[in-house]
Amino acid sequence: MRIARFSIDGNVAFGAVEGDPAPGKEGELVLDVIKGIPYADFELSGVKLPLSKVRLLPPVIGNKIVAFGRNYADHARELGNEVPEEPFAFLKPTTSMIGSGDAIEYPAFSSELHHEAELAVVIGRMCREVPRERVKDVIFGYTCANDVTARDVQRREKQWARAKGFDTACPIGPWVETELDTGDLAIQCTVNGEQRQLGSTSQMIHSIEDLIVNITEAMTLLPGDVILTGTPAGVGPLNVGDEVAVTIQGIGTLTNKVIKRG
Amino acid sequence: MRIARFSIDGNVAFGAVEGDPAPGKEGELVLDVIKGIPYADFELSGVKLPLSKVRLLPPVIGNKIVAFGRNYADHARELGNEVPEEPFAFLKPTTSMIGSGDAIEYPAFSSELHHEAELAVVIGRMCREVPRERVKDVIFGYTCANDVTARDVQRREKQWARAKGFDTACPIGPWVETELDTGDLAIQCTVNGEQRQLGSTSQMIHSIEDLIVNITEAMTLLPGDVILTGTPAGVGPLNVGDEVAVTIQGIGTLTNKVIKRG
Repeated sequence: MRIARFSIDGNVAFGAVEGDPAPGKEGELVLDVIKGIPYADFELSGVKLPLSKVRLLPPVIGNKIVAFGRNYADHARELGNEVPEEPFAFLKPTTSMIGSGDAIEYPAFSSELHHEAELAVVIGRMCREVPRERVKDVIFGYTCANDVTARDVQRREKQWARAKGFDTACPIGPWVETELDTGDLAIQCTVNGEQRQLGSTSQMIHSIEDLIVNITEAMTLLPGDVILTGTPAGVGPLNVGDEVAVTIQGIGTLTNKVIKRG
Repeated sequence: MRIARFSIDGNVAFGAVEGDPAPGKEGELVLDVIKGIPYADFELSGVKLPLSKVRLLPPVIGNKIVAFGRNYADHARELGNEVPEEPFAFLKPTTSMIGSGDAIEYPAFSSELHHEAELAVVIGRMCREVPRERVKDVIFGYTCANDVTARDVQRREKQWARAKGFDTACPIGPWVETELDTGDLAIQCTVNGEQRQLGSTSQMIHSIEDLIVNITEAMTLLPGDVILTGTPAGVGPLNVGDEVAVTIQGIGTLTNKVIKRG
């Protein structure tokens, strides 16, 4: 099932996305409005809305975003870094999230914004110290994310709260796909229609299981929390006016324009 | 005014703390229960509870904790680090917060836990790009915090999400003091009654104004968000069974026992 979060006429809700999300057919997609929050048992209301009439929001309401660095060897090397033996995590605040169609605001404190296409895992249950074989049970679904990074600030500041945590630095969506085999999915990033990143989730150094074991050794995850699983090679600049799109096979496309922060 | 958050018989509320919080007199403190959330206009209910009968909780409900590293020169030097010219921020998740009296759980993935006594600033209003002269307007008040750090993990992992973000790594409290001149306040940390850290907020390299200007250049702060302003020299080990106390002049004492994570 594909679950989106949206607003229409000032109301906010979740909805199940019905129809074929193939390119060119997005105009025909329909939302079946969900009663309540989809992390627990939920009901479809039967009230249907054309997807084209709503504003998509980040498809989660969570407490935190845990992101993992250098989880694709070719990306670690392209920035001149070693491939880490152990995963390492950093946090992005939920205030950095925007939905598909929202604008990435180029912040005044950077002059080198980069895209980083990533598979995002959405947590469905409160959990900590999750054993490897139970990881599947705590996952609600998967979506596309862009770990937008102020590369110049990242080089300058020892910790990345500002470089990767500014407002709009976490486009996420368009919806959460709850049934997906993530073993070998193509991840693509285009800028103005031109391919910049192309990789496969099969190239992750540390698996989704490893990442969730690693972070829940330390901290409790809550329903709606997001795990970003790293980006493949090909990261590069975003400029004001660009349209950046992250497409993950089996999920869909997350599209955002870059505007000047006003 | 001193504002605490507490639970009693399964109910959670905020309350104004009345009485003299001097050592030895804590038993006489009384809570006047607050109707609603104190970040906006609020009312005292007149319902009074002895503080000794409640469990103190973290005195905030916020979206994030932004912490600044190496903001006291003598602490930067004691760990062999350079004193940074610009402030640098990292994030701790709100799942790491515990109140005064709660236990710090020694995590299994570390064998070198350290205390770091810090002045915490609590934000009262949604804000971004706050000009220096307006910083005072976005501050709700001040409290004590302990930026508990797994020093061995911090050395090993490039980013500090696990080292400083594990569950119970952010004791905070006992309450928020809303009227305070923070220019020159003693910050003390004791372990089992023995002094380990003693400094003054006058030794901060970057002022509270600088820190809030710096972070809100990048990200929106929400009511209840917490800014940790750095720790003075004297950080050192915590062991299972220890009682660690952070006292800040004009606020009070935050006390936590260290137990094995079970």
